[in-house]
Amino acid sequence: MALAEETAARRARGGGGAARRAARSAVSFETARFIERNIPNFDILTPEAIEIIEHNAETVLEEIGVNFVENPAALERWRQAGADVQGERVHIPRGLARQLCATAPSRFTQHARNPARNVEIGGKSMVLAPVYGPPFVRDRVAGRRYATMADFEMFVKLGYMSKWLHHSGGTVCEPTDIPVNKRHLDMLYAHMALSDKPFMGSVTEPSRAADSVEMARILFGSDFVDSHCVMTSLVNINSPLTFDSVMMGALEEYAAAGQACIVSPFIVGGAMAPVSVAGTLTQVLAEVLAGIAYSQLIRPGCPMIFGAFVTSIDMNSGAPTFGTPEASQITYGAGQLARRLNLPYRSGGAFTGSKLPDAQGAYESANSLNAALLSGVNFMLHACGWLEGGLVASPEKFVMDADQLGILHKLAEGVPVDDNAQAMGALREVGPGGHFLGCAHTQANYSTAFWRTGLLDYKPYETWSEEGARDTEALASAKVDRMLADYQQPYLDPATDEALRAYMAQKKASMPDAFL
Amino acid sequence: MALAEETAARRARGGGGAARRAARSAVSFETARFIERNIPNFDILTPEAIEIIEHNAETVLEEIGVNFVENPAALERWRQAGADVQGERVHIPRGLARQLCATAPSRFTQHARNPARNVEIGGKSMVLAPVYGPPFVRDRVAGRRYATMADFEMFVKLGYMSKWLHHSGGTVCEPTDIPVNKRHLDMLYAHMALSDKPFMGSVTEPSRAADSVEMARILFGSDFVDSHCVMTSLVNINSPLTFDSVMMGALEEYAAAGQACIVSPFIVGGAMAPVSVAGTLTQVLAEVLAGIAYSQLIRPGCPMIFGAFVTSIDMNSGAPTFGTPEASQITYGAGQLARRLNLPYRSGGAFTGSKLPDAQGAYESANSLNAALLSGVNFMLHACGWLEGGLVASPEKFVMDADQLGILHKLAEGVPVDDNAQAMGALREVGPGGHFLGCAHTQANYSTAFWRTGLLDYKPYETWSEEGARDTEALASAKVDRMLADYQQPYLDPATDEALRAYMAQKKASMPDAFL
Repeated sequence: MALAEETAARRARGGGGAARRAARSAVSFETARFIERNIPNFDILTPEAIEIIEHNAETVLEEIGVNFVENPAALERWRQAGADVQGERVHIPRGLARQLCATAPSRFTQHARNPARNVEIGGKSMVLAPVYGPPFVRDRVAGRRYATMADFEMFVKLGYMSKWLHHSGGTVCEPTDIPVNKRHLDMLYAHMALSDKPFMGSVTEPSRAADSVEMARILFGSDFVDSHCVMTSLVNINSPLTFDSVMMGALEEYAAAGQACIVSPFIVGGAMAPVSVAGTLTQVLAEVLAGIAYSQLIRPGCPMIFGAFVTSIDMNSGAPTFGTPEASQITYGAGQLARRLNLPYRSGGAFTGSKLPDAQGAYESANSLNAALLSGVNFMLHACGWLEGGLVASPEKFVMDADQLGILHKLAEGVPVDDNAQAMGALREVGPGGHFLGCAHTQANYSTAFWRTGLLDYKPYETWSEEGARDTEALASAKVDRMLADYQQPYLDPATDEALRAYMAQKKASMPDAFL
Repeated sequence: MALAEETAARRARGGGGAARRAARSAVSFETARFIERNIPNFDILTPEAIEIIEHNAETVLEEIGVNFVENPAALERWRQAGADVQGERVHIPRGLARQLCATAPSRFTQHARNPARNVEIGGKSMVLAPVYGPPFVRDRVAGRRYATMADFEMFVKLGYMSKWLHHSGGTVCEPTDIPVNKRHLDMLYAHMALSDKPFMGSVTEPSRAADSVEMARILFGSDFVDSHCVMTSLVNINSPLTFDSVMMGALEEYAAAGQACIVSPFIVGGAMAPVSVAGTLTQVLAEVLAGIAYSQLIRPGCPMIFGAFVTSIDMNSGAPTFGTPEASQITYGAGQLARRLNLPYRSGGAFTGSKLPDAQGAYESANSLNAALLSGVNFMLHACGWLEGGLVASPEKFVMDADQLGILHKLAEGVPVDDNAQAMGALREVGPGGHFLGCAHTQANYSTAFWRTGLLDYKPYETWSEEGARDTEALASAKVDRMLADYQQPYLDPATDEALRAYMAQKKASMPDAFL
């Protein structure tokens, strides 16, 4: 705390200093602005279906209730708010949770240390963040192995340099070579120092959430953090209908500090939820209602995101599956339910069960990404880099998916129909049997007319063969090498850097290593 | 003609014989019914944008006009209908084309020789047909090579055995080992004999279209063909705005025989159409309006499909690109324009520019397939098997894409909210912290609840490694082998078979081989 105050005092007030620091950056890598959708959402649920699911979710909350485990303070807060608390079971009267959720904002800004990279979350926006959580890494050369801090830093660098990623994410992989009770410090520092995009805080212990807030105070200044959202963190619900004290402890820390959380059921349908889309949506809604309502008991007005991480189970093997039609239906449906609550919506991602960045990986990821765009997702975690059901992060898959994210940007722009877009002059100029390549309209528009891949191959077969007949993974591997070779760290004020390092050193020295 | 009459006389009237023949089939392979969408369409164009594009398309037809090349009879028909014909240029007064299109049906049945496999095209239906046109084949073992008749037969067999394909297609690849003026006979015979799904006729010469109708008369009986649609054929417009005499000659044959055609611009945006989505949609609409209007001058009421094969150009290389955001926008927009005309809509497909069935192939195909479903496509050609911008047909890609088509079926069902789907009993039974796998609702529903892949891998990493760490292409290659080993020809009446062979032999003997 002392360090944070000191650093804050040394630097300019608020975000102004960050702007000046960014301007001093020696190298700047282009990052697209977060998406503002100019297209409709795809509403798969009929009004009648929404009514049924909303009614049933309230029934779940009132009749069945939710458990807040090992958290007497939470139970007391619920009792005060008017819930019927029986042991650890909280029965929430019909309508109460929805009413409490109303104080959460429908859209908010998450600030980055480079203000040009601030993101807005909610409404028609869509913010893209990379893979979260894998304990393993697989790359084309070294194969599959436990992830390390060096891998973590590599993914942060790739994220920083990826044009279509707006957010640096959180646990881009688990740095298993760092003690479990200290790695959150290294992870946060990597996001803060190696990137200037917004990032996520730690949720694995309430004390680590507190550390996250402290380090953010050093980076942004305490006053700024007190009055602005600078972190969005992922709080999973222990589905079905259970809120454990670790995750809720993290949420309590963040909410008290005015920092955003994604309150997100983590559901494999058929295992942690009913084996039907409507039943799963009912449970998702009940869980998010309870979780966000609780956050507003901690601090009304604190920004929260309606999360839904839902997949289905392969009934043959028990394995989770991705890119399935049921997952898409749930993604579309949950978006409608989130909008009815006027809450920002998190879902989607480049999900796949594949072990490799092969066709299965791409089909499943593309199915998920397309559904996420049209379902109105505002915050997409896991937007690139997933393999093997989230067990593995892959640098090749990272840049492959990240290239596809450009498609979402262009698609979201909708179809312009201004005079230039109507192109009647071109149609008149060229006429039947002609060719548009050389016409004035094409010459004036060709450089921006169409989205361009930064990865995929359109060369003639013969050229492609001569160049080694490379598949997408091989192209991606080469691109990863180029990006890492080109990487340059964005400028960070040396005093801030030193203060961050000092905080980490002090915290690490204060406790023995733990690996479980 | 004599042969056709004779065969028709020998067999039962109408489609009844086909039903009996199907019942006698020794082996039956499951084929899903064509899709009836129970979900909304995704409308990317605003009402204002539709109005502008429709207005502009009429302007194109009236002011710029379209060319009907080397086709005096067509020019005369247009003159009679009220168009202003100047040389080969047909200026169609505002509103005339739309008015002529009104006699084409909004939905029709294409009959198969097995009536259980009839398809309906239009309204909320979606019919899936395989790859069309590639001169090359690539498989995992033999690599890339010119396609042969043996390849053609292989693809027809794979199509017959693919659960999610409703249609046998047309030129599934070009059998380059057969003379170009005779191969249509072998291709048609393969569809008629090796499959019992509906198929497409030849369009490469008017006389070949006539042969297609004759062979259909042998298969279905002349009376039946005269009063039922038994073929849907692909008539490409020579974009921009040009209707050549070969394609129009084929359309004239089919329309006169009451057989359906897809009237389809073939556009690489930026080359054959303006470099903007709205401009391309304007041209697509103008071209389809003119083509379908013309078909109704031949035979009012003849079934026609509003086609749109549109991709964009890579402005660096000039290569066509697939799975792009612009292609999706055009697919969505053209669907809206087709529905405004109450015409069945053809678009989409498992498009890709990739040389391999790799991640690029899958991303691009999945992007296209998802857009096609939500854009309200009624007939999807190229639904499986594409590589390399349509130059190459791949058996592995065929079964990979065909597996993904199952996802479209399930997604199209929408979200049921009946009592069973609501699953409130399961939620009450399991409660907070429980597990749904063993509950009564899961046990009652698990076998049908979720779509299941017939190809992709969800096994644990260790099992997958022990089994050879196969990628999707390797899994698909093994599946192709299994399918071909299991293939059994559907029963075909020996007299019909003999009559088809006799017709082919007579036609082949009547002309010298041509290879250009």
